[in-house]
Amino acid sequence: MPTGEIEIKVKTAELLNSCKKLPFEIKDFVKKTEALRLQYRYLDLRSFQMQYNLRLRSQVVMKMREYLCNLHGFVDIETPTLFKRTPGGAKEFLVPSREPGKFYSLPQSPQQFKQLLMVGGLDRYFQVARCYRDEGSRPDRQPEFTQIDIEMSFVDQTGIQSLIEGLLQYSWPSDKDPLVVPFPSMTFAEALATYGTDKPDTRFGMKIVDISNVFKHTEVRFLQDALSKPQGAVKAMCVREGANYLKKKDIESIRKFAADHFKEEVLPVFLKNKENWNSPVAKFILEKQRLELIRLMEIQEDDVVLLTAGEHKKACSLLGKLRLACADILEMNGMVLRDPALFSFLWVVDFPLFLPKEDNPLELESAHHPFTAPHPGDIHLLYTEPEKVRSQHYDLVLNGSEIGGGSIRIHDAELQHYILATLLKEDVKLLSHLLQALDYGAPPHGGIALGLDRLMCLITGAASIRDVIAFPKSFRGHDLMSNAPDSVSSQELKPYHIQVSWPADSEAERSSLNHSHHPES
Amino acid sequence: MPTGEIEIKVKTAELLNSCKKLPFEIKDFVKKTEALRLQYRYLDLRSFQMQYNLRLRSQVVMKMREYLCNLHGFVDIETPTLFKRTPGGAKEFLVPSREPGKFYSLPQSPQQFKQLLMVGGLDRYFQVARCYRDEGSRPDRQPEFTQIDIEMSFVDQTGIQSLIEGLLQYSWPSDKDPLVVPFPSMTFAEALATYGTDKPDTRFGMKIVDISNVFKHTEVRFLQDALSKPQGAVKAMCVREGANYLKKKDIESIRKFAADHFKEEVLPVFLKNKENWNSPVAKFILEKQRLELIRLMEIQEDDVVLLTAGEHKKACSLLGKLRLACADILEMNGMVLRDPALFSFLWVVDFPLFLPKEDNPLELESAHHPFTAPHPGDIHLLYTEPEKVRSQHYDLVLNGSEIGGGSIRIHDAELQHYILATLLKEDVKLLSHLLQALDYGAPPHGGIALGLDRLMCLITGAASIRDVIAFPKSFRGHDLMSNAPDSVSSQELKPYHIQVSWPADSEAERSSLNHSHHPES
Repeated sequence: MPTGEIEIKVKTAELLNSCKKLPFEIKDFVKKTEALRLQYRYLDLRSFQMQYNLRLRSQVVMKMREYLCNLHGFVDIETPTLFKRTPGGAKEFLVPSREPGKFYSLPQSPQQFKQLLMVGGLDRYFQVARCYRDEGSRPDRQPEFTQIDIEMSFVDQTGIQSLIEGLLQYSWPSDKDPLVVPFPSMTFAEALATYGTDKPDTRFGMKIVDISNVFKHTEVRFLQDALSKPQGAVKAMCVREGANYLKKKDIESIRKFAADHFKEEVLPVFLKNKENWNSPVAKFILEKQRLELIRLMEIQEDDVVLLTAGEHKKACSLLGKLRLACADILEMNGMVLRDPALFSFLWVVDFPLFLPKEDNPLELESAHHPFTAPHPGDIHLLYTEPEKVRSQHYDLVLNGSEIGGGSIRIHDAELQHYILATLLKEDVKLLSHLLQALDYGAPPHGGIALGLDRLMCLITGAASIRDVIAFPKSFRGHDLMSNAPDSVSSQELKPYHIQVSWPADSEAERSSLNHSHHPES
Repeated sequence: MPTGEIEIKVKTAELLNSCKKLPFEIKDFVKKTEALRLQYRYLDLRSFQMQYNLRLRSQVVMKMREYLCNLHGFVDIETPTLFKRTPGGAKEFLVPSREPGKFYSLPQSPQQFKQLLMVGGLDRYFQVARCYRDEGSRPDRQPEFTQIDIEMSFVDQTGIQSLIEGLLQYSWPSDKDPLVVPFPSMTFAEALATYGTDKPDTRFGMKIVDISNVFKHTEVRFLQDALSKPQGAVKAMCVREGANYLKKKDIESIRKFAADHFKEEVLPVFLKNKENWNSPVAKFILEKQRLELIRLMEIQEDDVVLLTAGEHKKACSLLGKLRLACADILEMNGMVLRDPALFSFLWVVDFPLFLPKEDNPLELESAHHPFTAPHPGDIHLLYTEPEKVRSQHYDLVLNGSEIGGGSIRIHDAELQHYILATLLKEDVKLLSHLLQALDYGAPPHGGIALGLDRLMCLITGAASIRDVIAFPKSFRGHDLMSNAPDSVSSQELKPYHIQVSWPADSEAERSSLNHSHHPES
């Protein structure tokens, strides 16, 4: 045809199948609820976006495999998903076996197996591993998810990090700007102090600044109070051009958020002009302090400074949350802050090895998992002040999302036993096979796991990880297409020697069993 | 060194880890029980054979991915393993959810999802898919296994077959003779008549021959009886040089096997010399018949002919079993029959679409699964004599093992509904999503699944599929290293609203809960 398109003259045509009226049009501009999309997933998959996402995912994973298998001698090894419960594995799905009272468990990751493979001399392991996590009522999680799971022998932290940098660079989609490696690195302490989080979005500044020194001799009561407490500090964050983008109601909602979630006061102050939204403290800031802050934080006309005082970690966390909230508001009001074409990777390192238990702060729990090796510089503290020990754990962060984490592992059976039994007070019997394995000449080893769903979600710019999974579960863990999970007759439960213990208030539900399909909205 | 080896002068050495005395030596010639190997799997993995098997498996799968993804535009798509029970899914493991009485199910294959992907316009799908099958007490099965799962739109049987031939040729280990394609093909009826099985080992002859015509006018009573019944036939198989390799006790055990398992009589006869081990019928074979048989079966001096009479299928099955038993005996006695370096692939096609139900022969069940399309030549029979309809199912057989199977699927919703509801009498509500999907313009499609564990077992010549799996379950479905499946406290069962129903005789076991590790032998 003149337009350059090809016109086909049909001589005969055969109708291969007919098509009923679709429940929605397969056009990207046609709005449809996610529930409808999930119920007719096989139609939703025809959309340009889903085709692009799934095809790109396949290509990225293929490139990763080429990099690992063909270029770096890794061995793709499948590990079992029918395993036994791990200590503290409260989030592991159970699978009843035909032996009365005996259950398999679907593991959250192949952690134990990959370490055992190192003991077994398979010194470069990887797997695109299906993992399972039962987070009960927690919303927006997939009960099954996929991770690029890697483990190596005779490697250190830098070795794993450059492997992953090369892996991502090699498999990065060709329609995007190539990645620049190495990725920057930041300690956990620095990330917390500067961004108020262990997964900073480094696409934009708006960093947290410690301004305690400026107020060392302040007479403002609440600053005085904060500074006099252990770890007390005054922190501030400069919102560039905030005066032009933040409305009074935005500031009010920021202050309310701080009061509601952190029981802290946040004071918005203009330091380069007169206006000060209800900030009672502004007038108590001395001229000397004002000039010092302007210098320290490089404050310009129309900038707004958010200031808070309190315990270091809490104050930083608060400002970290406000940083993201402000970014949302600024972007909603027209500022361009986070370039969607920018992929800002960051390593976060030197995490603490242990954290105080949430329900009993006098006891310790692993910050990540009990196989993480302590930082070589801190080993002596294990026996005196274990809470101060840093770990050899590392997280990979992309645009403010954690997309991977790993560590150098403990390869010394005695050290592993000490940490499990003495420090964590775990029942070591459950891990006797692993402890025993370390005793048979385990090599030093370490690894990492990348969350493939999250990574693909960020690469494609999808609104949810459900948009990079062919058949995802809904917000509440249901398959809206087939109606899983579903009822099962007591006859079918018999071979597994289990029966349902119906909650007292569910008689109604019980009698409505086998009723059909109630798609959630 | 003079030998060409390199000698290293060590200046300093650091001990990275020490090693306890191993429970067995890592040398291939050291015999150890499989239970011990599985208990210390991480040590067993260090053996030459396990390293070779697992590394080769990884390479073969990588080549398969290159062939499918890079050369043929297939998309690697992960499908869920937390699904809902399929009709007749008695072998599906259940996974309790946190909703009372609701269970996920671990599917035996991604069958429904792969068909839905075709409806969704992902017209070339593949996945190295983890599948689950709970075969209860059946021995020597892995509860989880892996298949190379493939589905295509707008394809016919030949299309899938040549894809798979190309796939295997491309990924075949380079240290083996290259594969010759296309693979030979045989109908189910021919396989049964010639080899007595739907998975013939075509590395050697010893074919079954129908000799009914020779005995059309026999006066031997039991041959007469057999021939007078419907489908009655006389069948024979020639064991070359049998007289030199089969001892009298071998023949006796063959006859006992036939009597015990098939309630049939097998008569061993020498047709070229006088000796006839206890074969009362031999003397009734007329000279004319003897010469006719020698001609028909190309019988040589010292050959032994095994002869049986009965219903066609039963007689063939019996001789098919004896064919393999004889091969075992002949090889044990020194004959080379099945070359371990020979890989003899075979397509078996034109299976029946339905079989009579085992427990009620008046009803039909799918010979493979209910989504298999009928043979185009037999569609009219669906409404009159469905038991005579052949299917578009195909099996791939290697050296007598089924290593793959697939079919062209039904893409017409009405036909699928008729087969499910009218012929199979299934509850169509359980498959309403699939029926609905077919109604929205499903393309014609078909696919296949290759059993990766079995394939690798044959390629590596391993004794068991457990030797090509890193962490297999034992014969009885246990993980002997970690002791899975394991007991779980009733506290841990609570969130899933289930409790154990202890069998009456298991009180003893119940009270011994949480006792440790009893490796099976």
